[in-house]
Amino acid sequence: MGSDMGPEELIIGVKKALAEDKSNYEIIIVGNESVITPMLLRHNLIRESRIKVYHASEVIEMDEKPIQAIKSKRDSSMMRAIEIVKLGTADAVLSCGNTGALMAGGTIKLRTMDGIERPALGTVIPGKTKNFVMIDVGASPDPKPESLVDNAILGANYATVALGVSNPRVGLLSNGTEDGKGNMLVQTAHRLFKSQEGVINYRGLLEGFNLFDGDFDVVVCDGFTGNLVLKSLESSARMFKDILKEEIYKSWIRKLGIFLARGAFIDMKKRLPIDKFSGAPLLGLNGLVVKAHGSSNRKQIAGALEITLRCLRKRMNDRIKEDVHRLNSIVEENKARAYEKEREILKSRETVQE
Amino acid sequence: MGSDMGPEELIIGVKKALAEDKSNYEIIIVGNESVITPMLLRHNLIRESRIKVYHASEVIEMDEKPIQAIKSKRDSSMMRAIEIVKLGTADAVLSCGNTGALMAGGTIKLRTMDGIERPALGTVIPGKTKNFVMIDVGASPDPKPESLVDNAILGANYATVALGVSNPRVGLLSNGTEDGKGNMLVQTAHRLFKSQEGVINYRGLLEGFNLFDGDFDVVVCDGFTGNLVLKSLESSARMFKDILKEEIYKSWIRKLGIFLARGAFIDMKKRLPIDKFSGAPLLGLNGLVVKAHGSSNRKQIAGALEITLRCLRKRMNDRIKEDVHRLNSIVEENKARAYEKEREILKSRETVQE
Repeated sequence: MGSDMGPEELIIGVKKALAEDKSNYEIIIVGNESVITPMLLRHNLIRESRIKVYHASEVIEMDEKPIQAIKSKRDSSMMRAIEIVKLGTADAVLSCGNTGALMAGGTIKLRTMDGIERPALGTVIPGKTKNFVMIDVGASPDPKPESLVDNAILGANYATVALGVSNPRVGLLSNGTEDGKGNMLVQTAHRLFKSQEGVINYRGLLEGFNLFDGDFDVVVCDGFTGNLVLKSLESSARMFKDILKEEIYKSWIRKLGIFLARGAFIDMKKRLPIDKFSGAPLLGLNGLVVKAHGSSNRKQIAGALEITLRCLRKRMNDRIKEDVHRLNSIVEENKARAYEKEREILKSRETVQE
Repeated sequence: MGSDMGPEELIIGVKKALAEDKSNYEIIIVGNESVITPMLLRHNLIRESRIKVYHASEVIEMDEKPIQAIKSKRDSSMMRAIEIVKLGTADAVLSCGNTGALMAGGTIKLRTMDGIERPALGTVIPGKTKNFVMIDVGASPDPKPESLVDNAILGANYATVALGVSNPRVGLLSNGTEDGKGNMLVQTAHRLFKSQEGVINYRGLLEGFNLFDGDFDVVVCDGFTGNLVLKSLESSARMFKDILKEEIYKSWIRKLGIFLARGAFIDMKKRLPIDKFSGAPLLGLNGLVVKAHGSSNRKQIAGALEITLRCLRKRMNDRIKEDVHRLNSIVEENKARAYEKEREILKSRETVQE
């Protein structure tokens, strides 16, 4: 356990989550007991029956190489937390740690579900009127077109849980919506989507320019593009904020003005619920792995815990498995139909030759 | 000629550019004479010796399919404008029209330079302290790794002209900077960059999260990723602006506050010089093709004209050709060296066998 703000911020986040949700569930804090116990004491959590502590002696640092780290640090809090999910002791793991290590560790230990080749990282992004799920934002930089169809199933189920939409509208992110636009991956995936109607509510391609317009509940992309779009958006928002702050601090009249108008900024922030959706699940594994931002504060920790609980309570992974099964039936049916068609063509040729 | 704001906005933009730059150059306005002449009269430009009109009877609309449009509308203003560049009557073409048609028409008519396989669209993006060139933002969605190296040359030369930096620092956009990060394209291109030092000042990988930090003058990527990052940034900026406006208009005290603080917003806009770099050149062709935003206003038209002139005056395309030539010499040298090495190994083996 840990975040850029230290383990105490995490403990406070847990306390907040437990206070907000009084129902019966258990949080297992995995990490160095000698660090955690005094903190639990300090925050009056030592007698909280819903908190358990599971000792782990090592920590995977943020800048460690993922594969090397998960191999060499077997008693790290992250690997131990994944392990207890594998053993069935816990239902989900939430971590603010090294994303690469969490993805690699989660994938290696928990394995992907039957029918899913690669896991995908989904995240909620605020839109102008509606929020949407973007998937994949970093797990697979070079997926096959089939994986983008899987991402749609994973993302749609997450959208149902996180955003409360039924039959989520799925779009495929592209550099243009006209025929022939998109890179080869997108073009092939677009054809696949169109041939596999029934499980996914596929609504076609969408451009970056229309990303925030609210026409799609799930935006599907490869992990390379998704990561870059997400991270660029985060860093541009940070830049605008920094520049505006600098400019405001240049005169007292500007400061006064912003003080008077502060309600607009507060309400704007409310409309962009970053804290609420601070956890991003790594979907498609046998077990739930949720990644929270390395720089998460208490509010964001609590938000990530809440979203994790919601995924579990709505039995999201079971629903994903059902959808994957349905999709595979359609794929098999399509194959059988194509085979039947080919056979008929061959037969009619034989008849002609006779 | 034309923009979403109609042809008159363009004429006013031309007038602005001519007023700002008194030196001797000529602007050929390509389009329907019967539309253009009355406008020139209205704006006192009919006797302006630096303006010529070249008649074209057709217009390629924004929503037309590029290849079909350039084939069927041979007398369109766009195709005529590209043609006079090919004939040497003009040195560059500037258009606010259909991007796909401009790229396809430019590439087919003008052809790429020797040693460049595909053209790339470069654009200036404002950073927190420094602006940078991003290339490619939409010309080639599926480039080869070698094309990313070409993009670096194209982008670096454009950065020198547009941003005034010598020896621009080139970065390769990736989903992470550690070894092994990036998709296959980025990984291969990264190795290529490292083996071809001398022409390009390559500084390694950069993440979306550090895009605006000012550590790179040129950010190289494929046209699919670049388009999506650029368009998402544009649309998120629009969304933030819209939401903030809505929230401000909810009460008079907020409106008063923003009125008092308006200087901060004006200065912020000055620090993000969107109008100045409103033209994005399609680089790597035998001739200069510059794309301005479809929604360009007069200021942005003038800005795009100014950047076009600067590219011509600094003989950018000649410099690109020199760099491509130098790069190819290094590639050939590397090949020769590798061949020599292999031969020596074979020789030593023969000696051992004797």
